[in-house]
Amino acid sequence: MLRQLTILGPGLLGGSIGMAARHRKVAGKVVVWARRPDAADAAYKLGAADEAVTDLRRAVAEAELVVLATPIGAMRSLAEQIPPGCAVTDVGSVKYPIVTALSDVLPKFVGAHPMAGSEQAGIEAARRDLIEGAVCIVTPQESTDKSALQLVFEFWKSLGCQVRTLAPLEHDEIVARISHLPHLVAAAVMNVVCRDGTQALNFAGPGFKDFTRIASGPPEMWTEIAVENRQEIARALDALIEDLGKLRAALENAEAIELRAMLKRARHFRDELRFRQ
Amino acid sequence: MLRQLTILGPGLLGGSIGMAARHRKVAGKVVVWARRPDAADAAYKLGAADEAVTDLRRAVAEAELVVLATPIGAMRSLAEQIPPGCAVTDVGSVKYPIVTALSDVLPKFVGAHPMAGSEQAGIEAARRDLIEGAVCIVTPQESTDKSALQLVFEFWKSLGCQVRTLAPLEHDEIVARISHLPHLVAAAVMNVVCRDGTQALNFAGPGFKDFTRIASGPPEMWTEIAVENRQEIARALDALIEDLGKLRAALENAEAIELRAMLKRARHFRDELRFRQ
Repeated sequence: MLRQLTILGPGLLGGSIGMAARHRKVAGKVVVWARRPDAADAAYKLGAADEAVTDLRRAVAEAELVVLATPIGAMRSLAEQIPPGCAVTDVGSVKYPIVTALSDVLPKFVGAHPMAGSEQAGIEAARRDLIEGAVCIVTPQESTDKSALQLVFEFWKSLGCQVRTLAPLEHDEIVARISHLPHLVAAAVMNVVCRDGTQALNFAGPGFKDFTRIASGPPEMWTEIAVENRQEIARALDALIEDLGKLRAALENAEAIELRAMLKRARHFRDELRFRQ
Repeated sequence: MLRQLTILGPGLLGGSIGMAARHRKVAGKVVVWARRPDAADAAYKLGAADEAVTDLRRAVAEAELVVLATPIGAMRSLAEQIPPGCAVTDVGSVKYPIVTALSDVLPKFVGAHPMAGSEQAGIEAARRDLIEGAVCIVTPQESTDKSALQLVFEFWKSLGCQVRTLAPLEHDEIVARISHLPHLVAAAVMNVVCRDGTQALNFAGPGFKDFTRIASGPPEMWTEIAVENRQEIARALDALIEDLGKLRAALENAEAIELRAMLKRARHFRDELRFRQ
């Protein structure tokens, strides 16, 4: 059990982590820091913290572990205000830039990415079971402090996550394909469907709703992710554009064999996914 | 109430329609025809029919309404064996080619497309509530028999569908965008993700699962749909490829404003979808 866990940024993830940590008694005390007093109040009222403050120095002074749960862009300047001896983890969706920047400032930083969320954002959507059962990717480097790694690994496990390990760059490459690309593609398809108005939405079935659910993720957050991980996403997008070009040609020529092979391959992979995890 | 409803092809949709029709007492008698005796038996045993037969002439002789629920490719030859005075509807996902071909043979044919389904296929996956609440697009032409249109319209309504009307070509254009394109794109993304093996699937979150669920639809059926509606799908695909190219350029140049605008537009449309229907 941690003496004190401090969460910086009580949004959807930060709030859910606070609720889960309190519920599962992962820490003797859960402190949440928010920039705005109303955000701190909301976190306290919703049960995400034993104590919610706006004074950053006070929030981190006694922390055994700090979780950075703010937007990626705010992490660097916050990190500089955390005692360098403190173990720190984060929830950012892109890892190489974060790990590189924060490891310089915080010797006990261990990057992490819990693969959970919702198309909603903000603490109002937080739930104590949001990350329960979710995959959490921990991204150590060779230089990562071993005891901090152990602590962070156990922390995510104690919240009910399935913890996996990837190098930061490997994380960004895989997540570009399995998460960032689908988000952008769902948004692009949504825009094509509504290109001349929203009449087509009257005819949407359950498949379309599931397919586009992720297109309602918070645009600010996804813009930041897209920019941070643009190289890996661009590579995945190139592969997709190439495949869609081939698909276009197969349609043009009514090549049923090609189309069937492509659909069978996809179904095979999708069936495999069903039996994973 | 219909005296006798006959369903040709007890697959996922045909079977579910039979179950719903019996449950809702839409017809005095529900007859199911299947080519194979074991398929007819299964339909009867699962409660999709009062009577299940493999003799097509017997199945349709007394029918007041026939529902063609076979693959699109089989519909034409079946249609030729239905008494021309009989009202007929279908469940095909592409309408212009079907309506054009069948209206010649069956003066009382009224095309329809219930927008329901599942990634599973076959009568084993049939459920009496599968099409309840689903949008069903009825596609009359100018020449469509008015009493048959009325009958077919009421039939789908009595099964709990939200019935809407579109001209056949208009249907194919809209459905190419709202259904066929997403199916093919989900499959293409699945294949990109697994291009070098399935390791990435270990890191899939709930968003990816929802996004790719439709990629496990039956490849035979979707190949047929893709080929039949290839012109409209190709047009939608061209628009998507163009937009993905712009997205690629915005990523390359880290154009946050462009990316944010694109994501905001998509979220706006997705939010609108939530309040429809």
